[in-house]
Amino acid sequence: MTRAIRILGIDPGLNATGWGVIEQAGSRLSLIGHGVIKAPAKDAMARRLCFIHDAVEALLDEHQPQEAAIEDQFVSANPGTALKLGQARAAAMLAPARAGLPVGEYAPRLVKKAVVGTGGADKAQVAAMIAVLLPGATAAADDADALAIAICHANHRSAQRLAS
Amino acid sequence: MTRAIRILGIDPGLNATGWGVIEQAGSRLSLIGHGVIKAPAKDAMARRLCFIHDAVEALLDEHQPQEAAIEDQFVSANPGTALKLGQARAAAMLAPARAGLPVGEYAPRLVKKAVVGTGGADKAQVAAMIAVLLPGATAAADDADALAIAICHANHRSAQRLAS
Repeated sequence: MTRAIRILGIDPGLNATGWGVIEQAGSRLSLIGHGVIKAPAKDAMARRLCFIHDAVEALLDEHQPQEAAIEDQFVSANPGTALKLGQARAAAMLAPARAGLPVGEYAPRLVKKAVVGTGGADKAQVAAMIAVLLPGATAAADDADALAIAICHANHRSAQRLAS
Repeated sequence: MTRAIRILGIDPGLNATGWGVIEQAGSRLSLIGHGVIKAPAKDAMARRLCFIHDAVEALLDEHQPQEAAIEDQFVSANPGTALKLGQARAAAMLAPARAGLPVGEYAPRLVKKAVVGTGGADKAQVAAMIAVLLPGATAAADDADALAIAICHANHRSAQRLAS
């Protein structure tokens, strides 16, 4: 009998951080929960980062994942946007890292490939496939991406040496 | 009699995070300590961010500052560099923010102006003025910048509404 593993996937953003928890038992995946963390946009940066960190920490308590995964973002354009995204990413990632969970990092193309089969898939395709792969998931864009990251981690976790 | 306040200044970076603690009593500033946090460059990102966060947390325990300040970085060029810097910045900033300390954010020009008198000062000028303003400080570039940030905060803290 295969031990079930819970995986927390995180799609970080300063305004909206998507999250999704799945359970993997052998080749079977099931949905545990998903949602979006929205830090108050008017707060000072330090407060917003605390909000994201503490919300992820609360998810660890609630859903007890053994491993975590986060997108290794592709940064397209604006350095100012990249600085903000980096801060949100660190705030979200520090919660599982401080709790001693391995945190896998996956490139966006790899995440899309794991779920849709092609690295060039768009957000709507990812969300549609999430609903197929995880019956019961009615996730919008942000949390569908987070669930896709968790699925990508589930597919790679046995093969990849995790950063732990 | 004016109550003395301890301020932690942070100059974040993924490879080297400078820190400096000063004490302000009325118009008098004195040096408490300074140094550089160097996260192992070979570690995975999650581990490096933990290292920075935990090192700043240890500084809070050791030096008991009541307030903190960090540079509101000017991001010049590469979005990939900005993403990394943002992550280091968040890891460092989260420690005082989670401990409930107000964390002031200051633009680099403001920091240089507070110490050298001109926003266009270079790193050598900042380090030279730190040695004058804080007798006993023999700080190199990274921690001199962190001490400059702490001094900038000391100058502005009564005037500025802090993010707390």
